[in-house]
Amino acid sequence: MCPHALIPYKPVNPKTRLSCVLSQEERELFARAMLSDVIYAVRDVNCSPVIVGTELFDSEDIQITVTDADLNQTLNSLLPQAVGEILIVMADLPLADAPSLRRVLSTKKDIAVVPGRGGGTNVIYLKEPHRFHVDYYGTSFLKHIKIAEDAGLSYDVIDSFRLHTDIDEKEDLVELLIHGTGKSRAYLEELGFVLSVEKGRVGVERKGKNSK
Amino acid sequence: MCPHALIPYKPVNPKTRLSCVLSQEERELFARAMLSDVIYAVRDVNCSPVIVGTELFDSEDIQITVTDADLNQTLNSLLPQAVGEILIVMADLPLADAPSLRRVLSTKKDIAVVPGRGGGTNVIYLKEPHRFHVDYYGTSFLKHIKIAEDAGLSYDVIDSFRLHTDIDEKEDLVELLIHGTGKSRAYLEELGFVLSVEKGRVGVERKGKNSK
Repeated sequence: MCPHALIPYKPVNPKTRLSCVLSQEERELFARAMLSDVIYAVRDVNCSPVIVGTELFDSEDIQITVTDADLNQTLNSLLPQAVGEILIVMADLPLADAPSLRRVLSTKKDIAVVPGRGGGTNVIYLKEPHRFHVDYYGTSFLKHIKIAEDAGLSYDVIDSFRLHTDIDEKEDLVELLIHGTGKSRAYLEELGFVLSVEKGRVGVERKGKNSK
Repeated sequence: MCPHALIPYKPVNPKTRLSCVLSQEERELFARAMLSDVIYAVRDVNCSPVIVGTELFDSEDIQITVTDADLNQTLNSLLPQAVGEILIVMADLPLADAPSLRRVLSTKKDIAVVPGRGGGTNVIYLKEPHRFHVDYYGTSFLKHIKIAEDAGLSYDVIDSFRLHTDIDEKEDLVELLIHGTGKSRAYLEELGFVLSVEKGRVGVERKGKNSK
């Protein structure tokens, strides 16, 4: 089994909600490090990564470029043509690992979905891609469940905090510093990020002269 | 297998970080509803709930009262006396369900730990409670891993977003409205809480005349 893994990715000016702690160049390097972690995990379960990027960038991986920002339209033009199974994995899931992805891929249902924090959808696995279409943004998790139901497809919701944790905001960096093992954690540490505990609550702070 | 499940719980003025959207009375009823959901899940996997509360309250469940706010001290006085296995489950995990708890209980290791959001520890399962001690607050997840290692205990980290999601802040209510199925979700809906989507981000708002 070697499904293609489509990985939506924005190489230029990504992760703007992290602007409070990272410059644009740092956000681009950080997003790239997270993408590397996701690609590592995806390869680890024998999937072939295909990056669906908003522009071409320097990489040895297969890339598809999206001519506009419409992720849904692009993916929905790809799904009907897909030969075999398709995994769609967001690029901002640096805690993704082989055990969590294996639970996704081992579903007995037609589809497996992993919800993201705040109603999003972080991973979708489709055994018959032509029978499904995506509808990202907003409460996409609920929309994807409805799309599956309307299409008569059975589905599993995979219960994984590693795949649930998308990194969008400063608070999310706590999870990466605690549970991360890959390049994106190393990059944060290189920039001087450390855990901080104040009044019993855990946050991150950026130390030293590397501060933005 | 029927381990006791210790459930730390604060019946009076709990969840103060929800004060922005809930009155004290509502927070107390909400915390109680979340406790009910946790107890339901715990019984569903044949564990016997024991509530470790900061004061006695009206309930048919077995209660142990904590004379002061020191959760660690209380639990650490209980663990060496425990006969058999012990599960410690926080009371603010309304997404807890039988499948997620079963994954905890089926560990082959000495201990299973479920990290909470922000470095906390939401669930600990101890096969030999006398060999362990707890150290909650701050980055307790990392502390618990170290305590296990220092004691020569093997451990599993269980990857579950349902058990990872503790409800502390307004944003967390999104998760409960999307993934909850029990009394605490119903109580939120009764109060008029609904999902709202603004600029692509999902939040909650409280509608109608029931507003605080």
